[in-house]
Amino acid sequence: MSIVVVGSIALDSVKTPYGEKKEALGGSALYFSSAASFFTKVSLVGVIGQDFPRGDIAFLARRGVDLSGLETAKGQTFRWSGSYQGDMNQAQTHDTRLNVFEQFHPKLGPAHRKIPHVFLANIHPSLQREVIAEMGTPKAIGCDTMNFWITSARSELLKTIRLVDIMFLNDAEVRQLSGETNLVRAAAAIRRMGPKVLVIKKGEHGAMLFSKYGVFAIPALPLEKVFDPTGAGDSFAGGFMGYLASQGRISDAILRRAMVYGSVMASFNVEKFSLDRLKTLKKSEITARYKQFKELTRFEA
Amino acid sequence: MSIVVVGSIALDSVKTPYGEKKEALGGSALYFSSAASFFTKVSLVGVIGQDFPRGDIAFLARRGVDLSGLETAKGQTFRWSGSYQGDMNQAQTHDTRLNVFEQFHPKLGPAHRKIPHVFLANIHPSLQREVIAEMGTPKAIGCDTMNFWITSARSELLKTIRLVDIMFLNDAEVRQLSGETNLVRAAAAIRRMGPKVLVIKKGEHGAMLFSKYGVFAIPALPLEKVFDPTGAGDSFAGGFMGYLASQGRISDAILRRAMVYGSVMASFNVEKFSLDRLKTLKKSEITARYKQFKELTRFEA
Repeated sequence: MSIVVVGSIALDSVKTPYGEKKEALGGSALYFSSAASFFTKVSLVGVIGQDFPRGDIAFLARRGVDLSGLETAKGQTFRWSGSYQGDMNQAQTHDTRLNVFEQFHPKLGPAHRKIPHVFLANIHPSLQREVIAEMGTPKAIGCDTMNFWITSARSELLKTIRLVDIMFLNDAEVRQLSGETNLVRAAAAIRRMGPKVLVIKKGEHGAMLFSKYGVFAIPALPLEKVFDPTGAGDSFAGGFMGYLASQGRISDAILRRAMVYGSVMASFNVEKFSLDRLKTLKKSEITARYKQFKELTRFEA
Repeated sequence: MSIVVVGSIALDSVKTPYGEKKEALGGSALYFSSAASFFTKVSLVGVIGQDFPRGDIAFLARRGVDLSGLETAKGQTFRWSGSYQGDMNQAQTHDTRLNVFEQFHPKLGPAHRKIPHVFLANIHPSLQREVIAEMGTPKAIGCDTMNFWITSARSELLKTIRLVDIMFLNDAEVRQLSGETNLVRAAAAIRRMGPKVLVIKKGEHGAMLFSKYGVFAIPALPLEKVFDPTGAGDSFAGGFMGYLASQGRISDAILRRAMVYGSVMASFNVEKFSLDRLKTLKKSEITARYKQFKELTRFEA
């Protein structure tokens, strides 16, 4: 089974208490693809500018990622710069330059349309819906968004969410979108908007899953150094959706394991700047960290 | 095996988004005793004023709690009033009247001194040390504190912490006491101050345990209604220490189960005002909720 992801490809300039990196690989689709490629065949759909250092994503091709949907447009690649302070739970955006992303409309080839799983990374909700309209009848549509769209494109977002199977949001977004402070009631409200499955990402506090099977919750792996949280949510979604796509079906046990794989990939991602950790990661390290999550959370009945 | 708890007994006036209750039973020692009494024999040491409605704690005696250490002093009972808003993670204190608590020095009888487990609920760290000095050689000393003592009585607190086996703190207190933002490094720093075991309470985000056996983390039970969070930390400690005392020894498996029982008792406590939920609780409900925690967190290897 395989998955197609549509999202941003960026050059990020990030400053954290541990250092600074300029114009490094970033963007939701790159983080997602890097993480998901350990579990399943990934097709990446997105746009880069003529200035993009294509050689830097050669590792994705080596990992079997299909880059035929990677369009090069005239102009500069999307750029984001930001910083993290203190407990690093929240990025401060310094600058966002959409550049080639401003005119972007996802172009799916005939092969892409038959792919059974889709992940709509954080882009304008109307673009996300364009992708859904182009797809055949996928087995599962995953979707991410952000506070900006919840505020500025709420009705568009609600139309998109209606068509989505698995929604990924952080706890602040869940509260903002539902208007509910209590997460249990907020989750129920969002599942009534369409998604059968809701994943709530809580950063250092772990993640929660709401589905017809009930609730599952997992703490984050306590890390001594969170180097750069950028892309943690997309790495989580990559691990989750990648594992799900590899299984080709949804069950309670599979969703729970997907949550652990999501947490595993996010925990690696934050250990270095940009994609640096996911780039060098080995399958054996993923297996070892899955066991570490088991050790972290096990208790006897 | 049994446990002695020294702490406050109060009349609390609390306002939450769900209602208001005036002059209700409260104080760390009452919450702790109510929770721990389901697991082990509890002896309560503390002070009340002549105005205290003794009949209201008859349920503790019925549950086998030894109240011989409950001293009645001339004057009014300790009073606290506060409120919670929004996500209810933080109480806003409106008023604190120490009253009889101001002159309180814990008086342990000969029988109390032989009890093998002690819990020093949140009182002045020098009073906590008075208790330790009076005790024989307990198997395990548990201790709680608060931001106020970390700031205003730091050197006293450090002297107490040096003698403690199991320290209970919330995540903000852990950061404040250690001066470290990162919880893993903060936990290591606090364990170097004395306690072999550190329990970090994170409210709606669950709890973490650091010991020589490694790290254990558990999410909180997602609740649709958190009615009144007052006493959740003391109920947690009561479940944890009560279960530990019932086992009479410490092991990795026992500490992990103690964390779950702590979480179970805290989750019940917040469902109603004051001690209202712990008062009517049944052992069978505790067993059922323990299973609910298993269901919430289980995943296959």
